[in-house]
Order: sequence, then C-alpha cells, then structure tokens
Amino acid sequence: MSEKSAVLHLTEELIRRPSVTPLDEGCQQLMADRLSALGFDIESMFFEDTLNLWARRGQGKPLFCFAGHTDVVPTGPLEQWDSPPFEPEIRDGLLYGRGTADMKGSLAAMIVATERFLAKKPQLTGDIAFLITSDEEGPFINGTKRVIETLEARQEKISWCLVGEPSSTHQVGDVIKNGRRGSLTGYLKVKGVQGHVAYPHLVDNPIHKAAPALAALSTEVWDHGNAFFPATSFQISNIHAGTGATNVVPGELSLTFNFRYSTEVTAEQLQQRVLALLDQHQLNYDIDWVLNGLPFLTDRGPLVEAAAKAVRQVQGFETSLETTGGTSDGRFIAPTGAQVVELGPCNGTIHKINEHVRVADLDLLTDMYEAILWHLLT
Amino acid sequence: MSEKSAVLHLTEELIRRPSVTPLDEGCQQLMADRLSALGFDIESMFFEDTLNLWARRGQGKPLFCFAGHTDVVPTGPLEQWDSPPFEPEIRDGLLYGRGTADMKGSLAAMIVATERFLAKKPQLTGDIAFLITSDEEGPFINGTKRVIETLEARQEKISWCLVGEPSSTHQVGDVIKNGRRGSLTGYLKVKGVQGHVAYPHLVDNPIHKAAPALAALSTEVWDHGNAFFPATSFQISNIHAGTGATNVVPGELSLTFNFRYSTEVTAEQLQQRVLALLDQHQLNYDIDWVLNGLPFLTDRGPLVEAAAKAVRQVQGFETSLETTGGTSDGRFIAPTGAQVVELGPCNGTIHKINEHVRVADLDLLTDMYEAILWHLLT
Repeated sequence: MSEKSAVLHLTEELIRRPSVTPLDEGCQQLMADRLSALGFDIESMFFEDTLNLWARRGQGKPLFCFAGHTDVVPTGPLEQWDSPPFEPEIRDGLLYGRGTADMKGSLAAMIVATERFLAKKPQLTGDIAFLITSDEEGPFINGTKRVIETLEARQEKISWCLVGEPSSTHQVGDVIKNGRRGSLTGYLKVKGVQGHVAYPHLVDNPIHKAAPALAALSTEVWDHGNAFFPATSFQISNIHAGTGATNVVPGELSLTFNFRYSTEVTAEQLQQRVLALLDQHQLNYDIDWVLNGLPFLTDRGPLVEAAAKAVRQVQGFETSLETTGGTSDGRFIAPTGAQVVELGPCNGTIHKINEHVRVADLDLLTDMYEAILWHLLT
Repeated sequence: MSEKSAVLHLTEELIRRPSVTPLDEGCQQLMADRLSALGFDIESMFFEDTLNLWARRGQGKPLFCFAGHTDVVPTGPLEQWDSPPFEPEIRDGLLYGRGTADMKGSLAAMIVATERFLAKKPQLTGDIAFLITSDEEGPFINGTKRVIETLEARQEKISWCLVGEPSSTHQVGDVIKNGRRGSLTGYLKVKGVQGHVAYPHLVDNPIHKAAPALAALSTEVWDHGNAFFPATSFQISNIHAGTGATNVVPGELSLTFNFRYSTEVTAEQLQQRVLALLDQHQLNYDIDWVLNGLPFLTDRGPLVEAAAKAVRQVQGFETSLETTGGTSDGRFIAPTGAQVVELGPCNGTIHKINEHVRVADLDLLTDMYEAILWHLLT
C-alpha cells in the first residue's frame, strides 16, 4: 500500500461509518487505534449523547493539536444520490460520499500525516494532540465546548490548533481561515394595541411603529471591519405580524435578526446600540439575545506562517487568509489563548447531495499537514 | 297587543330563527306575509346560496326604501352566553339574543312602523319598498349587490334608502351614518434574493429593502378628510417573511394593507401614490388590489333632514352625522344615485357574546321610522 493510498483507504473506512450527528459509529475508535500505535495517550470523553476523543503524545510544550469532527450532516433524499452516501465510490477522480469533504478526508489526512511524520523519527520540540468530536454539525453543546472546558479545568493548554474544516474554494489550500466572525442573534417583539382597521384612533399598529426603526437598523454602519474582517453585517431573517384577517391591526410584531460581527465591535456594544436605536424610536418591546459565538482572529505568527508555507511548498501558490463564512468549533478553542487556523478541502459540495472530494486533494492535504508538523515541531 | 309590544313580538319571532349567514330560516317569509297584507308586491330573488326579498307598494315616485339583512354572525361559544342566543330573553329591560341589535330589531321596527303609518291611511306622495338580504355579514356577493343590479337592469330606482344598521352609540338616534368611507386592500410581495446570513454580499434582503418604504407609507398623509369624513387611514394588517431559520435571509416579504378612505381621494389615486412610493424606493414587487367598497356620502337633503327631524321629535336631541366605522350594504345602493342613511340601535354589543338591545329602544326606533315615512311621503 503506497502512502498516498493510505489516506484514501482511511477516508473510505470512515465514510462507511454512517455517523450522522451525534453518532460516531466507531470512527473515533478507528482513529484512536492508529494513534495509540504511535504512542498517543487516548482519552474518550462521553458527554450526554456525544463521544469525544482527546489523544495526546508527550507531556511537553508547545502543544500542536489537530481538531475535527467525525459526525456528518444527514444525507437528504437517498434517491437523489448517484451512489449510496455511506458507500465510498470513485468516479472521474472524485471520491463520493457523505463526509468526504466535511470532514472525514481531513481526519484521514491528519492521521496519515502524523504517521508519516513520526515514522521519520524527528527530534520533536513539542507535543501532538487530536481533539475530535461527534457534535460539530449539531447543537455544539457536548462536543468541543466541553472538551475544552475539561482541558481548561486541568490547565492543559493548546498552543497551535489546526481545524480540518473545508476552507478551500477552488484548489485545496487556496484559502486558510485564520479567524471567524462572531454571531449574535436577537429575538425582538414590538408591542402595540390590536383593533379594527376601521377605527385607527383605537389601535397602535406595531408594524407602523417598527418600520422606521427597522429601516434605521438595516442601513446602520456597525463598523468598517479591518484587515482581517469584513464589516459587521446585520440581517433580519424573520418578521411576522398579523391575524390573517385583512381588517384587523395586530397587537404584536415579532422579528429575528442576526449579526455576523468583526473584532472591531463587541456583542455588548452591538446590543447597546440596538437598544438605543429602539428606544430612540420610542418602541415598546421585549428582546432576547443569543450569543452563538465570539469572533476570533489568529494574526500572523508561527501557526499562520507554517500553514501558508505548507501550501506554498505543496501547491506552489500563495494562500489567502480569510475570516468569512459560518461559525466553526474554532470559536471554542481560540478563547483559551490558542492560535487557531482552519485548512481543509474544497467546500463546494459540503452538506449537499453527492458530496465529494478530489482524490488527489486528499494526498495534497496530507502533504500540507505533514509539512506543518515539520515547520512547528522540529 | 299594544303597538309597542308589536315590535318586541316581531323581533322575538325573528330571533328564534337561527339565520346565520347565508341562511334566512324563514325570516323573509315572515316579513313578506306582513307586507303582502299591506298591499306590497313580493319578489323573492334567490342568487346562489342567498335569499333576498324585494317588496314594493305602488308604481310611483319618489321611492322610499327600508334596507336590511336577516342574517346574523355566528354565536361564538354557546357556553359563554347567559341565555341561548336564539331564544330571546328579557332581563333588566334588555332583550338578549343574536341579531337583536344587528339587525332584527330594526327589521321589526321597519315592519311595525310601516303598518302603523299605512293604517292611518295617509295620502301618499310616493312608494315604499323593502330590500332585505341574508348575505350582509358574509361574502357580500349574492345579496344587496345583485338585487341592486337587478333593479338597475330594469331601471327601477330608489330615491331614499334607510338602512337599519346599528348606527347609535349611547342612545338610539344619537348617530346617523350619512356615508361610509371606501375600503381598498392591497396585497404586496417584495422580492429579494434568499441566502445565508453569513454571506451578506450574496443576498438581497427584502425586509431591509421594504423597511424604508413601509416607514414612508405609514407616515404618509393621504388627505385631511372633509366636513363629513375623517382623514383617509392606512393600516398594514399582516406582514410575513422568513424561513423560520435564524441564519437564512428570506427571498420574499408579503404584506397586506388596507385603506379606509374619504371622498377627498379616489381608489385610483391611492393606488398610484402607493406604486410611486414603492418605485421611489426601488423595490422589486408584485401587488394585487381589492376594492371592497367605494365611499359614499349623502349630503344634507330631504332624507338626512327627515331622519334628523325624526330623532329630534322622538328623543329631543340633535343627532350627529358621521361616516366612521366599517362598510355596509349602503355602498352598493348609493352608487345608483339614491340618498342613503343608516339609523338603527346602539352598536355596543353587536357581533359579541350576549348581544342585546334595550326593549324601550325598539319602540323609539319604530317611532323614528314612522316619523321619517310621514316626513318624506306625505
């Protein structure tokens, strides 16, 4: 078996395990067996319905950690797949299956890269760990968040963390995520007085009262972003009011909005500015907030340099550092002080029917991961 | 049986017939029998599910017409009524039952007033008619609208029409409606581009785009009304957008709005101004309109003077001419050129649980209706 086929083989083994969130279906055991053979200490952390793996080799510093998830999103309608989603199949150089790109290919590349690196018996200047969860696509409660809480409680610190999320756009390595925006959701209820449209003096229409405030919120400039973050964006995702009858003014307007915000503002500042604007429009309202994730940024430093250099060596082009896109488990790791980047396959088919990854990209990704280990730990 | 108890007796007879729209349940037959005995020609007009009565006495001019409806709105939860809604019951001088105020009490008063008037054998200078439908509380399609179309087709014209709608507020006769506002409903869909909140450059949020236009619509001054009409009012009654997910920007916003408008503007002008405002805000939209009723106004003249004089004679106070409140079947009669007013009992309990009318008010209303006949036809 060539080294290159090793990553393909392991990816296929993982794909065959139908680990839809929060199921792991033996993926972590497969990884743990391989890591145990390399001298890793294996720790399974089972929280509620979620299996997590913490594997570490060594007791020293600094600590480099591969992070990822074995769970996958549901398949969607099976009949729309050209081949069964949990039976890996290669067609035209593409490996098809649920989780090939998000992110079992990355997990296999991490394992094989570590095996190849350690087989060369380098003089290590630090430790290697794996933080693997089966809860990344789900509620985000019993996965990385609780593993990190456990590590923090015993003062076990990650120095550098590489998350295997599919960061790439057209070619593997063309984008490295070196941060993520924060996500803050607001649930607003604007109150009025219900009544018949024929008696406007007896009603207080919450749609009319809210409209100027909504106009102001949607045109407000929250910040201008910075070198790493686009400007903070505000989007109203849902708005509802009305009894269904055309002649009744409703008593309440409900709406949901979401901020994706940069490191130029804090969640508290955004909340205060929203409240000030609602008060300025003299609205009678209730509001609830959910902070989905703090923003994080890993500026240029050893980890970013190592990852960028690895891409340059393997692909011959310069990577692009970006902070766009949705949230990831990096939001739970970065607040501990760890440097965090995300580097993985192309994300064009993730969560979709016929998810796939280029077979050749699995080999390229393995090469990049191994190069990062060399740059940081020798 | 005294004359005063005659109106109470007939009201009770009508209440016992559970004529929920579009059912008539024999009410019109009861009225037709009484009118036939007075020399009226009886014409039943049955359109689709709706029974209508056209009864006319004489072939001359001018033609005075009593207009009303035998149908009532549903009872609502029976257990909330203190007495069964279709079993008339008098408690503390109040007659309880569904339809007592809206408008079987008026129908009984019209019949008894006509009987008393004709019994005195006056020299008439015109005709009397009754236009009665069982579709006033419902879809307004096969009732007064189609009777009027039938009369128009044979060039049979009403000169003066008294609709028995419960126009009064505190004392019977304190308000006469001498017109009604128009009602125009708009169904608006504002189009955008759906997408993920994390990629604001790929979406076009229809809520954000619409908000300034809605703010402008809700603060626009459409007119200032006039001596008979309050200012035209605009109310958004329903607004909906969103997939339910907090992280998805919807592709479309739907809303319903309603104008209650004065005779200072036309429906066409309101439509043009709304479209101009939407275009000014560069919205991509579809809009559908429903014109529920044209406004009408019966200015001071023989009918208004006769009704006001009747109130003054019976109650000793000056009535107030108003055009407020919802629509009525007067909107179908007025466009033929008829003068139309509405005069009926107090409306505080109409459409509600424990609907009732003061027994004494039935007698007062009968006196007013008879006085109007004397003023106009002798």
